[in-house]
Amino acid sequence: MSEYHVDPTQIVGYAFAPTTYSYTERDVSLYALGVGAGADPLDARELRYVYELSGDGFVTLPTFGVVFASQMIVGLLSGDLPGLRFNPMLLLHGEQRLDLARPLPARASVTLKPVISAVYDKGSGALVIIDVPAYDDRGELLALNQSSMFIRGIGGFGGERGASEKLELPTREPDQTVEQATLAQQALLYRLSGDTNPLHADPALAAAGGFARPILHGLCTLGFAGRAALNAFCGGEPARFKSIRGRFTRHVFPGETLITRFWRENGRVLYESVVKERGDSALMGVIETA
Amino acid sequence: MSEYHVDPTQIVGYAFAPTTYSYTERDVSLYALGVGAGADPLDARELRYVYELSGDGFVTLPTFGVVFASQMIVGLLSGDLPGLRFNPMLLLHGEQRLDLARPLPARASVTLKPVISAVYDKGSGALVIIDVPAYDDRGELLALNQSSMFIRGIGGFGGERGASEKLELPTREPDQTVEQATLAQQALLYRLSGDTNPLHADPALAAAGGFARPILHGLCTLGFAGRAALNAFCGGEPARFKSIRGRFTRHVFPGETLITRFWRENGRVLYESVVKERGDSALMGVIETA
Repeated sequence: MSEYHVDPTQIVGYAFAPTTYSYTERDVSLYALGVGAGADPLDARELRYVYELSGDGFVTLPTFGVVFASQMIVGLLSGDLPGLRFNPMLLLHGEQRLDLARPLPARASVTLKPVISAVYDKGSGALVIIDVPAYDDRGELLALNQSSMFIRGIGGFGGERGASEKLELPTREPDQTVEQATLAQQALLYRLSGDTNPLHADPALAAAGGFARPILHGLCTLGFAGRAALNAFCGGEPARFKSIRGRFTRHVFPGETLITRFWRENGRVLYESVVKERGDSALMGVIETA
Repeated sequence: MSEYHVDPTQIVGYAFAPTTYSYTERDVSLYALGVGAGADPLDARELRYVYELSGDGFVTLPTFGVVFASQMIVGLLSGDLPGLRFNPMLLLHGEQRLDLARPLPARASVTLKPVISAVYDKGSGALVIIDVPAYDDRGELLALNQSSMFIRGIGGFGGERGASEKLELPTREPDQTVEQATLAQQALLYRLSGDTNPLHADPALAAAGGFARPILHGLCTLGFAGRAALNAFCGGEPARFKSIRGRFTRHVFPGETLITRFWRENGRVLYESVVKERGDSALMGVIETA
């Protein structure tokens, strides 16, 4: 048995110890600034995301819910779980899904019960699926995160391959196109919301990962896209934002500009975020609205 | 007796109830981003101010110490203290002084004991001086803030006029000139460090105060100047940064660029921050270094 290994019989169904995460309007505002809100301080709609006394009410961005999963993702970086030992440097965040049972409160204490729901053998690596349900203080489900983490180099353990779902974007012109600048310090700001992976701050570690400089969090890019969709398709009302799914396809450097195209298709919104400066597609996915 | 009034015999010496303020590296990093650190994520020196695992060590910016006074300033906005009743809309932050007994820890719990140390009668208004000493958990003085608040319209109560100290800047060329861009969302970011005065976020309140849009916190501008001085005159070492004093002379709008000129004079550093776009002097003061 090599140093690194996967044993599906041990790891699938593994439940992390439940944790409690408490947040206030300050955390919500910080997150919103972390995903680009407030860049126009006179935009009344956006002010609701960053200013707790906004005359138009304070609104928690729906994608704030991914923060509930961030600590778990950081915890996974230890690289050592029963039946799953791996090199954390080879971990990639492949996909994220967030389902919201109802709009997130401005402040709350939520209980998180992360569990590894599946492990797939992709040949070149293992795909680990982690579910993080978040419950409110009455024990009701508030949000469900599902993170797909790809670990290079530890495939071939004889597990199921799993479905290979490919998202097809329409070839027609998008229904909406939104351009959003990110800040040079965007990753340093976003990481204060809990995803403290050094890859997003430490130039040496970024270099070790093959990047000229620290890269933006995939979940940060997803937050930019979610915010644009909330404004464009939900009238800024979180009650109409039901879920978001995103697949991370390429990195974004802080300071680059995101161009996100949206298509309404069969009651859903498909989207793709492209780095303006390099033309690379960085993120694509689906948002369900009501 | 008018609705608003000053009674020096009651208000001078008034001690606020002591409070405790606890902070961690996250708060320190958030503050540093709030005063413009991290704008170049590859700058190793600046990374120490915003990244707790920095290979060069984590450093708490000396001016983080003004945060200890922020809550007290917000508390003053109630406008109702024994012997001092005023319209909070007429309160101006005139000057700030921060003395550091030693470098601030990366995380700490400090006890604050604010006291109104003096009230001067300036004719057109009252100048209220508030001292906020901050003690560490062994009861030793860590930092001392002194805030000078000018309250328009309640002068003429027959109090002492106080000294009128004018800071003379040299006429010669500055020894250093530092240009720093602020972000459009700088005030929204800075306020998360505790100075939640709506003037810096709410367009309607800013308009009521005569401003076209929310203005930057004077203490935020002071943080930009202090950070520049730490880099330029202290080699980035907080132990060499002893105190900073600043007088707020004009507002700065978020998104404007600050040009700060520094002069070394008699072992001190004099400075002035000017708004590049409008040419207005916004802040001037003195920094003591070792």
